[in-house]
Amino acid sequence: MRIGIAGLGTVGGGVVKMLARRKAALEAATGRAIEIAAVCARDRTRDRGIDLGAARWFDNPVEMARAGTLDGGGLDVIVELIGGAEGVAKATVEAALAAGRHVVTANKALIAHHGTALARAAEAAGVALNYEAAVAGGIPIVRTLREALGGNDISTVTGILNGTCNYILTEMETTGGSFADILARAQALGYAEADPSFDIGGVDAAHKLAILASLAFGTEIDFDHVLIEGIEKIGGIDIKFAQEFGYRIKLLAIARRTAEGIEQRVQPALIPESSPLAAVAGVFNAVCVTGDPIGSVVLEGEGAGEGPTASAVVGDLMDIARGACVPPMGVPAALLRPLAALPAERHQGAYYLRLNAADRAGSMAAITRDLADADVSFERIVQRGQAGDGRRPVVFITHETSEGTMRRALDLLLEHEDVAGTPLMLRIEGD
Amino acid sequence: MRIGIAGLGTVGGGVVKMLARRKAALEAATGRAIEIAAVCARDRTRDRGIDLGAARWFDNPVEMARAGTLDGGGLDVIVELIGGAEGVAKATVEAALAAGRHVVTANKALIAHHGTALARAAEAAGVALNYEAAVAGGIPIVRTLREALGGNDISTVTGILNGTCNYILTEMETTGGSFADILARAQALGYAEADPSFDIGGVDAAHKLAILASLAFGTEIDFDHVLIEGIEKIGGIDIKFAQEFGYRIKLLAIARRTAEGIEQRVQPALIPESSPLAAVAGVFNAVCVTGDPIGSVVLEGEGAGEGPTASAVVGDLMDIARGACVPPMGVPAALLRPLAALPAERHQGAYYLRLNAADRAGSMAAITRDLADADVSFERIVQRGQAGDGRRPVVFITHETSEGTMRRALDLLLEHEDVAGTPLMLRIEGD
Repeated sequence: MRIGIAGLGTVGGGVVKMLARRKAALEAATGRAIEIAAVCARDRTRDRGIDLGAARWFDNPVEMARAGTLDGGGLDVIVELIGGAEGVAKATVEAALAAGRHVVTANKALIAHHGTALARAAEAAGVALNYEAAVAGGIPIVRTLREALGGNDISTVTGILNGTCNYILTEMETTGGSFADILARAQALGYAEADPSFDIGGVDAAHKLAILASLAFGTEIDFDHVLIEGIEKIGGIDIKFAQEFGYRIKLLAIARRTAEGIEQRVQPALIPESSPLAAVAGVFNAVCVTGDPIGSVVLEGEGAGEGPTASAVVGDLMDIARGACVPPMGVPAALLRPLAALPAERHQGAYYLRLNAADRAGSMAAITRDLADADVSFERIVQRGQAGDGRRPVVFITHETSEGTMRRALDLLLEHEDVAGTPLMLRIEGD
Repeated sequence: MRIGIAGLGTVGGGVVKMLARRKAALEAATGRAIEIAAVCARDRTRDRGIDLGAARWFDNPVEMARAGTLDGGGLDVIVELIGGAEGVAKATVEAALAAGRHVVTANKALIAHHGTALARAAEAAGVALNYEAAVAGGIPIVRTLREALGGNDISTVTGILNGTCNYILTEMETTGGSFADILARAQALGYAEADPSFDIGGVDAAHKLAILASLAFGTEIDFDHVLIEGIEKIGGIDIKFAQEFGYRIKLLAIARRTAEGIEQRVQPALIPESSPLAAVAGVFNAVCVTGDPIGSVVLEGEGAGEGPTASAVVGDLMDIARGACVPPMGVPAALLRPLAALPAERHQGAYYLRLNAADRAGSMAAITRDLADADVSFERIVQRGQAGDGRRPVVFITHETSEGTMRRALDLLLEHEDVAGTPLMLRIEGD
């Protein structure tokens, strides 16, 4: 099996090293000789500490995806590790599929935005499009949904899909440090990018969630209907309140099938500390799948990094070497249904609402009365501080209600004379 | 795809129901018509609450595995849900493979005892032998080791693989009840068999572990080298001591590659309460795989029962419908190496040792001195009770040592005039 690798960054280097170190085992398990026949990266001169052997070097990955190798034999598989939803990564994958080559990619943005069309192209060409590394690193969640649980009627997929966010929230919890300080430390440690906005803002997790939702529900990938909120607004005070109430705050990615449509949401949310996902700490990722008749299954592991991602890419390559060719989205792309999205305001659940009450007698009473008038009822109200302290933080835990009701309440609070600044509203998830 | 199902108990019924309920989805995902063409069970007249449609009924599963169906077309797959390592289950699977039929089985005893030979037969016939349901119910651990992590160099597989034992230990922990009482309750609830010896004694978990070790290390399945201890000897006092020291007691199944050989052990052991497996409660199962370059991955879910097991069987059937045919043990059976077993006495680790010191002045000092003379050194010694209480329980937590040293120490204690009754020795596992 002749492989062409496009992109020799951390993951690409990890794949090259793993294919070299495990060559004998891989060839024994698959019964195929496996060879890196071509590579492509921007800088030909950089020392990457890897031995590329006799691989043909390309400067243009699209050309590699189309071309033969030095001795004229074609490539069987293109491994795309360039990244990005558009541009050269997309062109490379399209060229490879058009040339009848299998594709393995770690590119979550590409699959989230163009996965359905690419799946169609792969099926038309009769080749595999494998992307286990695109979601949750080394955790085998794509193949678990696509194959192991393929016969189930899935109702919910809940994940911690971004290690950077989970690291920051875990550190805020354990050290009491501020978001900004811990983000800076995460950047120093290499757990966060120089520009962390894709991670922190929830877009990275949303890419992964859109892919998982399609696999779980047999729907077209629909990134545009993922409701996305980041963790920037979470304060140390929220972490502490959550703990006091028996919750943890996690950036949760949730895809849920309801009678009225599918919801896809990436949001910081409170989960009970007894929930399996509450214990997922640091850069680890985890995914919980609930379905019939399987019940619940939880998969946990490292969600990023050279080793776990290389493991996923090599597992995908082994499938191809063994001749497996499953429709990329589990069911043939032509049978994927458009995703009927649940309107956000129809979400039902409990909420955490934190605001600063103005420092005057009667402010709490006025806020509480006006929220009650807006149909919000409370399981719990906690106030810190006293008159004269300046702004006084108040937290409301609501009974189950609709997001529409909460949004109207939030609008009311934004205008409210007794509320200082912008209230924070977080969802509370059940077990 | 024409399926013959041998065995219509709980799992068989679950498979029939799932294939009926999910027929459209399964056929869409695999592109194949899927039909239960034949069934076989002991009692033809029993009402199982399932619709067997036009399936041909057989009284003898071996005959079904060999025969065609009513209209003369052959069966493509035999699903063996009879159980047992020998006898009719084995004959059925052998007959199916010999007839060139794919096999799906949930039979852990059969695979643990005859898996290597059956894998060879399946490969010779060019058919699949899938057995995801044999290990940890709905948790996709077989395919994760065989496929997703197939390129990794696995060092350890640690599992909670028996739901009955985990339920009993969890209940002992949370209710303070005795082993016997909770076993009786588990039997009443259907969590334990009328004859629970295979579960309680560790044999069931050992079957599963032998299979996982083969998949992890590329070795022949070697059930005879699994060291097996059950949970009968665990007392409420041990659960309490373990908690006091920050541990939980779990029936752990561990396969570990060391420089001197592979160890396979099923034993009740102490694990730190912060370990991911410590949180696995009740009838749930979980498996933690550690390897290079993946790091650690944990899979958790229901390890038994109609739904999860049916899910695993149907996932295996989907693979066959899609044309996948992976060597049953990951690498071709001819390449499996004999398992070089680590002698039990070479195990290195810390130990929990609980004994009753005789009720006389100086007994503790004598025991401690003699253990020290036997090269056992302690991190911690805790004694309960006082002179005059009768037998006084003492617990020693050792520093890391060899199992050989501990066994010699245990022999010494069995003869010791200051020790009343039989001491209990449990291993302590790290994180």
